[in-house]
Amino acid sequence: MTSSEKLYVVKIGGNIIDDELKLDEFLNDFAKLEGKKILIHGGGKLATKLAKLLNIPQVMVEGRRITDAETLKVITMVYAGHINKRIVAALNAKDCKSIGLTGTDGDFIQAHKRPVKNIDYGFVGDIDSVNPDLLISLFHQHLTAIVAPLTADKKGQLLNTNADTIAKEIAVAMAKYFEVHLVYTFEKRGVLSDFNDENTAIPLLSFNLYQHFKQEEKIFAGMIPKLDNAYAAISGGVASVRVGDAKDLKLLVNGTTGTRLIYD
Amino acid sequence: MTSSEKLYVVKIGGNIIDDELKLDEFLNDFAKLEGKKILIHGGGKLATKLAKLLNIPQVMVEGRRITDAETLKVITMVYAGHINKRIVAALNAKDCKSIGLTGTDGDFIQAHKRPVKNIDYGFVGDIDSVNPDLLISLFHQHLTAIVAPLTADKKGQLLNTNADTIAKEIAVAMAKYFEVHLVYTFEKRGVLSDFNDENTAIPLLSFNLYQHFKQEEKIFAGMIPKLDNAYAAISGGVASVRVGDAKDLKLLVNGTTGTRLIYD
Repeated sequence: MTSSEKLYVVKIGGNIIDDELKLDEFLNDFAKLEGKKILIHGGGKLATKLAKLLNIPQVMVEGRRITDAETLKVITMVYAGHINKRIVAALNAKDCKSIGLTGTDGDFIQAHKRPVKNIDYGFVGDIDSVNPDLLISLFHQHLTAIVAPLTADKKGQLLNTNADTIAKEIAVAMAKYFEVHLVYTFEKRGVLSDFNDENTAIPLLSFNLYQHFKQEEKIFAGMIPKLDNAYAAISGGVASVRVGDAKDLKLLVNGTTGTRLIYD
Repeated sequence: MTSSEKLYVVKIGGNIIDDELKLDEFLNDFAKLEGKKILIHGGGKLATKLAKLLNIPQVMVEGRRITDAETLKVITMVYAGHINKRIVAALNAKDCKSIGLTGTDGDFIQAHKRPVKNIDYGFVGDIDSVNPDLLISLFHQHLTAIVAPLTADKKGQLLNTNADTIAKEIAVAMAKYFEVHLVYTFEKRGVLSDFNDENTAIPLLSFNLYQHFKQEEKIFAGMIPKLDNAYAAISGGVASVRVGDAKDLKLLVNGTTGTRLIYD
Protein backbone atom coordinates (compact mmCIF):
# COMPACT_ATOMS: atom_id res chain seq x y z
CA MET A 1 0.00 0.00 0.00
CA THR A 2 3.00 2.35 0.42
CA SER A 3 2.62 5.31 -1.89
CA SER A 4 5.34 7.56 -3.21
CA GLU A 5 3.14 10.60 -2.68
CA LYS A 6 4.63 12.89 -0.06
CA LEU A 7 2.82 13.89 3.11
CA TYR A 8 4.25 16.45 5.53
CA VAL A 9 3.27 16.00 9.17
CA VAL A 10 4.33 19.18 10.95
CA LYS A 11 4.32 19.80 14.69
CA ILE A 12 4.43 23.42 15.85
CA GLY A 13 5.68 24.05 19.36
CA GLY A 14 4.15 26.14 22.08
CA ASN A 15 6.51 29.10 22.05
CA ILE A 16 5.61 30.07 18.48
CA ILE A 17 1.91 29.90 19.30
CA ASP A 18 2.44 32.42 22.09
CA ASP A 19 3.92 34.94 19.63
CA GLU A 20 1.26 36.33 17.28
CA LEU A 21 3.72 37.62 14.68
CA LYS A 22 5.87 34.47 14.63
CA LEU A 23 2.73 32.32 14.39
CA ASP A 24 1.45 34.35 11.44
CA GLU A 25 4.81 34.02 9.63
CA PHE A 26 4.83 30.29 10.29
CA LEU A 27 1.26 29.95 8.97
CA ASN A 28 2.24 31.87 5.82
CA ASP A 29 5.01 29.33 5.20
CA PHE A 30 2.78 26.39 6.11
CA ALA A 31 0.00 27.60 3.77
CA LYS A 32 2.52 27.82 0.89
CA LEU A 33 3.84 24.30 1.48
CA GLU A 34 2.80 22.33 -1.60
CA GLY A 35 1.17 18.93 -1.43
CA LYS A 36 -0.56 17.10 1.37
CA LYS A 37 0.09 18.20 4.93
CA ILE A 38 -1.19 17.93 8.50
CA LEU A 39 -0.43 20.37 11.32
CA ILE A 40 -0.34 19.38 14.99
CA HIS A 41 -0.11 22.22 17.48
CA GLY A 42 0.83 22.40 21.13
CA GLY A 43 -0.73 24.58 23.74
CA GLY A 44 1.86 27.14 24.71
CA LYS A 45 1.64 29.16 27.88
CA LEU A 46 -1.92 30.35 27.31
CA ALA A 47 -3.44 27.46 29.27
CA THR A 48 -1.12 28.15 32.22
CA LYS A 49 -2.00 31.86 32.08
CA LEU A 50 -5.73 31.17 31.98
CA ALA A 51 -5.49 28.66 34.84
CA LYS A 52 -3.69 31.32 36.87
CA LEU A 53 -6.38 33.94 36.13
CA LEU A 54 -9.02 31.41 37.23
CA ASN A 55 -7.07 30.48 40.38
CA ILE A 56 -6.70 26.85 39.33
CA PRO A 57 -3.43 25.65 40.87
CA GLN A 58 -1.10 24.00 38.34
CA VAL A 59 0.96 21.07 39.58
CA MET A 60 4.01 20.04 37.54
CA VAL A 61 5.82 16.75 38.19
CA GLU A 62 9.09 16.19 36.32
CA GLY A 63 8.15 18.91 33.84
CA ARG A 64 4.74 17.42 33.11
CA ARG A 65 1.42 18.99 33.94
CA ILE A 66 -0.93 17.11 36.27
CA THR A 67 -4.33 17.44 34.60
CA ASP A 68 -7.17 17.61 37.11
CA ALA A 69 -10.79 18.17 36.00
CA GLU A 70 -10.58 21.98 36.13
CA THR A 71 -7.24 22.04 34.30
CA LEU A 72 -8.67 19.73 31.61
CA LYS A 73 -11.51 22.21 31.07
CA VAL A 74 -8.99 25.04 30.67
CA ILE A 75 -6.87 22.98 28.27
CA THR A 76 -9.90 22.01 26.18
CA MET A 77 -10.97 25.65 25.95
CA VAL A 78 -7.51 26.93 25.03
CA TYR A 79 -6.24 24.10 22.76
CA ALA A 80 -9.43 23.00 20.95
CA GLY A 81 -11.15 26.40 21.13
CA HIS A 82 -8.98 29.49 21.02
CA ILE A 83 -5.75 28.19 19.43
CA ASN A 84 -7.23 25.63 17.04
CA LYS A 85 -9.94 27.86 15.59
CA ARG A 86 -7.62 30.86 15.32
CA ILE A 87 -5.17 28.75 13.25
CA VAL A 88 -7.96 27.27 11.07
CA ALA A 89 -9.51 30.68 10.33
CA ALA A 90 -6.09 32.19 9.58
CA LEU A 91 -5.13 29.35 7.19
CA ASN A 92 -8.49 29.55 5.37
CA ALA A 93 -7.80 33.25 4.78
CA LYS A 94 -4.36 32.26 3.37
CA ASP A 95 -6.04 29.93 0.83
CA CYS A 96 -5.08 26.79 2.74
CA LYS A 97 -8.50 25.27 3.41
CA SER A 98 -8.32 23.75 6.87
CA ILE A 99 -10.39 21.86 9.39
CA GLY A 100 -9.72 21.66 13.12
CA LEU A 101 -9.73 18.31 14.90
CA THR A 102 -9.04 16.76 18.26
CA GLY A 103 -8.57 13.00 18.55
CA THR A 104 -12.22 12.60 19.57
CA ASP A 105 -13.51 14.26 16.36
CA GLY A 106 -14.59 11.44 14.09
CA ASP A 107 -13.08 9.29 16.87
CA PHE A 108 -9.93 9.25 14.74
CA ILE A 109 -7.53 8.75 17.68
CA GLN A 110 -8.34 6.04 20.21
CA ALA A 111 -6.84 6.60 23.64
CA HIS A 112 -7.06 5.62 27.30
CA LYS A 113 -6.37 7.42 30.55
CA ARG A 114 -2.77 6.89 31.62
CA PRO A 115 -2.73 4.25 34.39
CA VAL A 116 -1.55 5.45 37.79
CA LYS A 117 1.88 4.04 38.69
CA ASN A 118 4.17 6.25 40.76
CA ILE A 119 2.48 9.44 39.59
CA ASP A 120 -1.19 10.14 38.92
CA TYR A 121 -1.10 12.43 35.89
CA GLY A 122 -4.88 12.86 36.02
CA PHE A 123 -6.79 13.24 32.76
CA VAL A 124 -3.85 12.48 30.48
CA GLY A 125 -4.24 10.23 27.45
CA ASP A 126 -2.02 7.50 26.05
CA ILE A 127 -2.75 6.64 22.43
CA ASP A 128 -3.94 3.17 21.39
CA SER A 129 -4.34 3.76 17.65
CA VAL A 130 -4.96 6.29 14.88
CA ASN A 131 -7.62 5.59 12.24
CA PRO A 132 -6.41 7.19 8.99
CA ASP A 133 -9.80 7.07 7.17
CA LEU A 134 -11.01 10.54 8.21
CA LEU A 135 -7.64 12.16 7.40
CA ILE A 136 -7.56 10.50 3.97
CA SER A 137 -11.14 11.57 3.24
CA LEU A 138 -10.23 15.16 4.16
CA PHE A 139 -7.40 15.04 1.60
CA HIS A 140 -9.96 14.06 -1.05
CA GLN A 141 -11.75 17.31 -0.17
CA HIS A 142 -8.46 19.26 -0.34
CA LEU A 143 -8.68 20.01 3.36
CA THR A 144 -5.71 20.27 5.72
CA ALA A 145 -6.27 18.86 9.20
CA ILE A 146 -5.17 21.05 12.13
CA VAL A 147 -4.91 18.83 15.20
CA ALA A 148 -5.20 20.02 18.82
CA PRO A 149 -3.57 17.82 21.49
CA LEU A 150 -6.65 16.24 23.06
CA THR A 151 -8.17 12.78 22.78
CA ALA A 152 -10.99 10.92 24.56
CA ASP A 153 -11.40 7.43 25.94
CA LYS A 154 -14.21 4.99 25.10
CA LYS A 155 -16.37 6.42 27.88
CA GLY A 156 -16.25 9.92 26.41
CA GLN A 157 -13.72 11.30 28.90
CA LEU A 158 -11.56 13.97 27.27
CA LEU A 159 -7.82 13.54 27.85
CA ASN A 160 -4.88 15.94 27.60
CA THR A 161 -2.45 14.26 25.17
CA ASN A 162 1.14 15.08 24.25
CA ALA A 163 1.30 16.85 20.87
CA ASP A 164 4.71 15.34 19.93
CA THR A 165 3.27 11.87 20.49
CA ILE A 166 0.12 12.67 18.46
CA ALA A 167 2.36 13.88 15.60
CA LYS A 168 4.37 10.65 15.74
CA GLU A 169 1.29 8.40 15.89
CA ILE A 170 -0.37 10.22 12.95
CA ALA A 171 2.89 10.05 10.94
CA VAL A 172 3.20 6.30 11.55
CA ALA A 173 -0.48 5.60 10.75
CA MET A 174 -0.20 7.56 7.49
CA ALA A 175 3.10 5.90 6.50
CA LYS A 176 1.08 2.97 5.10
CA TYR A 177 -0.40 5.30 2.48
CA PHE A 178 2.16 8.06 1.94
CA GLU A 179 5.85 8.86 1.97
CA VAL A 180 5.63 10.69 5.31
CA HIS A 181 8.04 13.43 6.33
CA LEU A 182 7.68 14.38 9.98
CA VAL A 183 8.93 17.82 11.01
CA TYR A 184 9.11 18.90 14.64
CA THR A 185 9.41 22.68 14.75
CA PHE A 186 10.24 24.70 17.85
CA GLU A 187 12.35 27.74 18.79
CA LYS A 188 15.82 26.15 18.31
CA ARG A 189 17.73 25.43 15.11
CA GLY A 190 17.75 21.71 15.78
CA VAL A 191 19.29 19.34 18.33
CA LEU A 192 22.16 21.38 19.75
CA SER A 193 25.39 19.68 20.86
CA ASP A 194 25.80 22.60 23.28
CA PHE A 195 22.30 23.67 24.24
CA ASN A 196 23.50 27.16 25.17
CA ASP A 197 24.84 27.75 21.66
CA GLU A 198 22.39 28.13 18.76
CA ASN A 199 25.23 27.52 16.28
CA THR A 200 25.81 23.93 17.37
CA ALA A 201 22.83 22.28 15.64
CA ILE A 202 23.79 18.72 14.65
CA PRO A 203 22.92 18.16 10.95
CA LEU A 204 22.58 14.37 11.30
CA LEU A 205 21.92 12.60 14.59
CA SER A 206 22.18 8.83 14.58
CA PHE A 207 20.39 6.77 17.21
CA ASN A 208 23.74 5.60 18.60
CA LEU A 209 25.05 9.16 18.94
CA TYR A 210 21.74 10.16 20.56
CA GLN A 211 22.11 7.37 23.15
CA HIS A 212 25.68 8.51 23.79
CA PHE A 213 24.57 12.17 24.24
CA LYS A 214 21.77 11.07 26.59
CA GLN A 215 24.23 9.17 28.78
CA GLU A 216 26.53 12.17 28.90
CA GLU A 217 23.52 14.42 29.65
CA LYS A 218 24.41 16.58 26.67
CA ILE A 219 20.82 16.60 25.45
CA PHE A 220 18.45 19.07 27.08
CA ALA A 221 16.04 16.99 29.21
CA GLY A 222 12.95 18.55 27.59
CA MET A 223 14.13 17.27 24.19
CA ILE A 224 14.22 13.60 25.20
CA PRO A 225 10.49 12.74 24.84
CA LYS A 226 10.47 14.55 21.46
CA LEU A 227 13.51 12.64 20.21
CA ASP A 228 12.22 9.32 21.55
CA ASN A 229 9.04 9.99 19.55
CA ALA A 230 11.13 10.89 16.52
CA TYR A 231 13.08 7.61 16.55
CA ALA A 232 9.87 5.64 17.15
CA ALA A 233 8.43 7.32 14.03
CA ILE A 234 11.40 6.14 11.95
CA SER A 235 10.96 2.59 13.29
CA GLY A 236 7.28 2.91 12.37
CA GLY A 237 7.99 3.52 8.69
CA VAL A 238 8.14 7.31 8.46
CA ALA A 239 10.47 8.32 5.60
CA SER A 240 12.27 11.17 7.38
CA VAL A 241 12.18 13.02 10.69
CA ARG A 242 13.68 16.46 11.13
CA VAL A 243 13.80 18.86 14.10
CA GLY A 244 14.36 22.60 13.68
CA ASP A 245 13.31 26.22 13.98
CA ALA A 246 9.68 27.04 13.10
CA LYS A 247 10.87 30.08 11.13
CA ASP A 248 12.81 27.75 8.81
CA LEU A 249 9.85 25.55 7.80
CA LYS A 250 10.61 25.80 4.07
CA LEU A 251 14.26 24.81 4.55
CA LEU A 252 13.32 22.04 6.98
CA VAL A 253 10.97 20.56 4.40
CA ASN A 254 13.69 20.85 1.71
CA GLY A 255 16.06 19.11 4.10
CA THR A 256 18.64 21.88 4.10
CA THR A 257 18.55 22.90 7.77
CA GLY A 258 17.77 21.54 11.22
CA THR A 259 18.69 18.13 12.57
CA ARG A 260 17.81 15.00 10.64
CA LEU A 261 17.42 11.92 12.79
CA ILE A 262 18.53 8.58 11.41
CA TYR A 263 19.01 5.09 12.79
CA ASP A 264 22.57 4.51 11.63
CA MET B 1 -31.83 16.98 -6.81
CA THR B 2 -34.37 16.79 -3.94
CA SER B 3 -34.09 13.46 -2.20
CA SER B 4 -36.72 11.73 -0.10
CA GLU B 5 -34.08 10.70 2.41
CA LYS B 6 -34.76 12.35 5.75
CA LEU B 7 -32.25 14.59 7.51
CA TYR B 8 -32.88 15.95 11.01
CA VAL B 9 -31.28 19.30 11.78
CA VAL B 10 -31.57 19.77 15.54
CA LYS B 11 -30.76 22.91 17.52
CA ILE B 12 -30.20 22.51 21.25
CA GLY B 13 -30.66 25.59 23.39
CA GLY B 14 -28.38 27.03 26.00
CA ASN B 15 -30.32 26.12 29.12
CA ILE B 16 -30.01 22.38 28.48
CA ILE B 17 -26.27 22.71 27.93
CA ASP B 18 -25.94 24.30 31.37
CA ASP B 19 -27.53 21.24 33.03
CA GLU B 20 -25.21 18.21 32.89
CA LEU B 21 -27.95 15.65 33.55
CA LYS B 22 -30.44 17.14 31.07
CA LEU B 23 -27.71 17.39 28.45
CA ASP B 24 -26.78 13.75 28.94
CA GLU B 25 -30.43 12.66 28.59
CA PHE B 26 -30.79 14.76 25.46
CA LEU B 27 -27.60 13.26 23.97
CA ASN B 28 -28.92 9.74 24.71
CA ASP B 29 -32.06 10.55 22.70
CA PHE B 30 -30.09 12.27 19.97
CA ALA B 31 -27.67 9.32 19.65
CA LYS B 32 -30.64 6.94 19.24
CA LEU B 33 -32.26 9.06 16.53
CA GLU B 34 -32.09 6.92 13.40
CA GLY B 35 -30.89 8.23 10.06
CA LYS B 36 -28.89 11.30 9.12
CA LYS B 37 -28.71 14.16 11.57
CA ILE B 38 -26.81 17.35 12.43
CA LEU B 39 -26.71 19.03 15.85
CA ILE B 40 -26.22 22.77 16.35
CA HIS B 41 -25.60 23.91 19.91
CA GLY B 42 -25.81 27.26 21.63
CA GLY B 43 -23.51 28.53 24.30
CA GLY B 44 -25.52 28.72 27.49
CA LYS B 45 -24.45 30.73 30.48
CA LEU B 46 -20.94 29.30 30.64
CA ALA B 47 -19.46 32.06 28.47
CA THR B 48 -21.06 34.74 30.65
CA LYS B 49 -19.77 33.01 33.79
CA LEU B 50 -16.23 32.72 32.41
CA ALA B 51 -16.25 36.36 31.27
CA LYS B 52 -17.28 37.37 34.79
CA LEU B 53 -14.47 35.30 36.36
CA LEU B 54 -12.01 36.99 33.97
CA ASN B 55 -13.43 40.47 34.69
CA ILE B 56 -14.45 41.02 31.07
CA PRO B 57 -17.50 43.30 31.18
CA GLN B 58 -20.46 41.94 29.18
CA VAL B 59 -22.59 44.51 27.38
CA MET B 60 -26.08 43.43 26.28
CA VAL B 61 -28.14 45.57 23.89
CA GLU B 62 -31.75 44.49 23.32
CA GLY B 63 -30.94 41.03 24.66
CA ARG B 64 -27.94 40.58 22.39
CA ARG B 65 -24.35 40.28 23.47
CA ILE B 66 -21.87 42.87 22.20
CA THR B 67 -18.83 40.80 21.20
CA ASP B 68 -15.57 42.67 21.76
CA ALA B 69 -12.18 40.98 21.17
CA GLU B 70 -11.89 39.57 24.71
CA THR B 71 -15.48 38.32 24.70
CA LEU B 72 -14.89 36.64 21.34
CA LYS B 73 -11.91 34.80 22.84
CA VAL B 74 -14.09 33.61 25.74
CA ILE B 75 -16.86 32.52 23.37
CA THR B 76 -14.43 30.64 21.12
CA MET B 77 -12.99 28.83 24.14
CA VAL B 78 -16.37 27.92 25.61
CA TYR B 79 -18.39 27.16 22.45
CA ALA B 80 -15.78 25.56 20.14
CA GLY B 81 -13.64 24.15 22.97
CA HIS B 82 -15.39 23.07 26.14
CA ILE B 83 -18.99 22.56 24.97
CA ASN B 84 -18.35 21.24 21.47
CA LYS B 85 -15.68 18.69 22.44
CA ARG B 86 -17.63 17.52 25.49
CA ILE B 87 -20.67 16.80 23.27
CA VAL B 88 -18.56 15.07 20.58
CA ALA B 89 -16.76 12.83 23.09
CA ALA B 90 -20.06 11.97 24.83
CA LEU B 91 -21.79 11.09 21.55
CA ASN B 92 -18.85 8.93 20.41
CA ALA B 93 -19.17 6.99 23.67
CA LYS B 94 -22.90 6.54 22.91
CA ASP B 95 -22.04 4.96 19.51
CA CYS B 96 -23.01 8.08 17.57
CA LYS B 97 -19.74 8.86 15.79
CA SER B 98 -19.44 12.63 15.74
CA ILE B 99 -17.19 15.43 14.59
CA GLY B 100 -17.16 18.97 15.92
CA LEU B 101 -17.21 21.92 13.56
CA THR B 102 -17.46 25.68 13.55
CA GLY B 103 -18.32 27.51 10.34
CA THR B 104 -14.63 28.12 9.66
CA ASP B 105 -13.79 24.40 9.71
CA GLY B 106 -13.51 23.34 6.10
CA ASP B 107 -14.72 26.92 5.47
CA PHE B 108 -18.21 25.40 5.23
CA ILE B 109 -20.04 28.58 6.34
CA GLN B 110 -19.09 31.85 4.68
CA ALA B 111 -19.84 34.93 6.77
CA HIS B 112 -19.03 38.61 7.21
CA LYS B 113 -18.87 40.92 10.20
CA ARG B 114 -22.25 42.56 10.81
CA PRO B 115 -22.09 46.14 9.48
CA VAL B 116 -22.45 48.88 12.08
CA LYS B 117 -25.80 50.69 11.81
CA ASN B 118 -27.35 51.97 15.02
CA ILE B 119 -25.53 49.41 17.14
CA ASP B 120 -21.98 48.06 16.84
CA TYR B 121 -22.36 44.39 17.78
CA GLY B 122 -18.59 43.87 17.49
CA PHE B 123 -17.31 40.52 16.23
CA VAL B 124 -20.71 39.14 15.24
CA GLY B 125 -21.18 37.25 11.99
CA ASP B 126 -23.95 37.35 9.41
CA ILE B 127 -24.04 34.32 7.14
CA ASP B 128 -23.52 34.63 3.36
CA SER B 129 -23.77 30.95 2.41
CA VAL B 130 -23.38 27.35 3.55
CA ASN B 131 -21.38 24.89 1.43
CA PRO B 132 -22.99 21.46 1.87
CA ASP B 133 -20.05 19.41 0.45
CA LEU B 134 -18.24 18.82 3.75
CA LEU B 135 -21.47 17.85 5.55
CA ILE B 136 -22.41 15.42 2.77
CA SER B 137 -18.93 13.88 2.80
CA LEU B 138 -19.19 13.39 6.56
CA PHE B 139 -22.45 11.47 6.05
CA HIS B 140 -20.58 9.13 3.68
CA GLN B 141 -18.27 8.40 6.60
CA HIS B 142 -21.25 7.88 8.94
CA LEU B 143 -20.24 10.91 10.96
CA THR B 144 -22.66 13.31 12.65
CA ALA B 145 -21.62 16.97 12.56
CA ILE B 146 -21.87 18.88 15.86
CA VAL B 147 -21.79 22.59 15.06
CA ALA B 148 -20.68 25.36 17.45
CA PRO B 149 -22.03 28.88 16.77
CA LEU B 150 -18.92 30.53 15.33
CA THR B 151 -17.94 31.50 11.80
CA ALA B 152 -15.08 33.50 10.24
CA ASP B 153 -14.84 36.10 7.52
CA LYS B 154 -12.58 35.96 4.46
CA LYS B 155 -9.77 37.65 6.39
CA GLY B 156 -9.73 34.91 9.03
CA GLN B 157 -11.54 36.95 11.70
CA LEU B 158 -13.63 34.65 13.92
CA LEU B 159 -17.22 35.82 14.47
CA ASN B 160 -19.83 35.00 17.11
CA THR B 161 -22.86 33.78 15.14
CA ASN B 162 -26.42 33.07 16.23
CA ALA B 163 -27.01 29.31 16.59
CA ASP B 164 -30.70 29.50 15.52
CA THR B 165 -29.62 31.22 12.31
CA ILE B 166 -26.85 28.67 11.67
CA ALA B 167 -29.43 25.86 12.11
CA LYS B 168 -31.76 27.55 9.61
CA GLU B 169 -29.02 28.20 7.05
CA ILE B 170 -27.73 24.60 7.27
CA ALA B 171 -31.31 23.25 6.98
CA VAL B 172 -31.97 25.36 3.86
CA ALA B 173 -28.63 24.45 2.23
CA MET B 174 -29.27 20.73 2.83
CA ALA B 175 -32.89 20.92 1.58
CA LYS B 176 -31.55 20.58 -1.98
CA TYR B 177 -30.32 17.08 -1.14
CA PHE B 178 -32.58 15.79 1.66
CA GLU B 179 -36.07 15.98 3.11
CA VAL B 180 -34.98 18.23 5.96
CA HIS B 181 -36.80 18.36 9.30
CA LEU B 182 -35.62 21.25 11.45
CA VAL B 183 -36.21 20.94 15.20
CA TYR B 184 -35.55 23.82 17.58
CA THR B 185 -35.36 22.44 21.12
CA PHE B 186 -35.32 24.53 24.27
CA GLU B 187 -36.81 24.43 27.77
CA LYS B 188 -40.48 25.06 26.82
CA ARG B 189 -43.04 22.69 25.32
CA GLY B 190 -43.42 24.82 22.20
CA VAL B 191 -44.70 28.27 21.32
CA LEU B 192 -46.97 29.11 24.27
CA SER B 193 -50.13 31.18 23.76
CA ASP B 194 -49.69 32.25 27.39
CA PHE B 195 -45.98 32.25 28.07
CA ASN B 196 -46.53 31.84 31.81
CA ASP B 197 -48.43 28.57 31.28
CA GLU B 198 -46.56 25.48 30.04
CA ASN B 199 -49.86 23.85 29.09
CA THR B 200 -50.67 26.36 26.37
CA ALA B 201 -48.32 25.10 23.65
CA ILE B 202 -49.88 25.75 20.25
CA PRO B 203 -49.80 22.52 18.15
CA LEU B 204 -49.88 24.33 14.79
CA LEU B 205 -48.83 27.94 14.31
CA SER B 206 -49.56 29.48 10.93
CA PHE B 207 -47.57 32.47 9.72
CA ASN B 208 -50.70 34.63 9.85
CA LEU B 209 -51.47 33.67 13.42
CA TYR B 210 -47.80 34.30 14.32
CA GLN B 211 -48.04 37.83 12.85
CA HIS B 212 -51.23 38.37 14.82
CA PHE B 213 -49.62 37.17 18.08
CA LYS B 214 -46.60 39.38 17.44
CA GLN B 215 -48.82 42.45 17.03
CA GLU B 216 -50.66 41.62 20.24
CA GLU B 217 -47.30 41.05 21.98
CA LYS B 218 -48.44 37.57 22.98
CA ILE B 219 -45.17 36.00 21.82
CA PHE B 220 -42.25 36.17 24.24
CA ALA B 221 -39.76 38.64 22.71
CA GLY B 222 -36.85 36.16 22.91
CA MET B 223 -38.80 33.76 20.68
CA ILE B 224 -39.17 36.17 17.75
CA PRO B 225 -35.72 35.73 16.12
CA LYS B 226 -36.12 31.93 16.50
CA LEU B 227 -39.55 31.96 14.86
CA ASP B 228 -38.46 34.36 12.11
CA ASN B 229 -35.67 31.87 11.36
CA ALA B 230 -38.18 29.02 11.43
CA TYR B 231 -40.48 30.62 8.84
CA ALA B 232 -37.48 31.55 6.67
CA ALA B 233 -36.47 27.86 6.73
CA ILE B 234 -39.89 26.82 5.44
CA SER B 235 -39.65 29.42 2.65
CA GLY B 236 -36.20 27.99 1.89
CA GLY B 237 -37.52 24.50 1.19
CA VAL B 238 -37.24 22.78 4.58
CA ALA B 239 -39.93 20.07 4.85
CA SER B 240 -40.97 20.76 8.45
CA VAL B 241 -40.03 23.01 11.35
CA ARG B 242 -40.97 22.22 14.92
CA VAL B 243 -40.23 23.94 18.25
CA GLY B 244 -40.38 22.13 21.58
CA ASP B 245 -38.85 20.82 24.76
CA ALA B 246 -35.39 19.23 24.49
CA LYS B 247 -36.54 16.36 26.72
CA ASP B 248 -39.18 15.43 24.11
CA LEU B 249 -36.75 15.03 21.17
CA LYS B 250 -38.16 11.65 20.14
CA LEU B 251 -41.75 12.93 20.11
CA LEU B 252 -40.73 16.13 18.34
CA VAL B 253 -39.11 14.10 15.58
CA ASN B 254 -42.22 11.89 15.35
CA GLY B 255 -44.30 15.08 15.13
CA THR B 256 -46.47 14.27 18.14
CA THR B 257 -45.56 17.17 20.40
CA GLY B 258 -44.31 20.77 20.34
CA THR B 259 -45.39 23.47 17.92
CA ARG B 260 -45.29 22.86 14.19
CA LEU B 261 -44.87 26.02 12.14
CA ILE B 262 -46.64 26.25 8.80
CA TYR B 263 -47.27 28.99 6.27
CA ASP B 264 -51.02 28.59 5.98
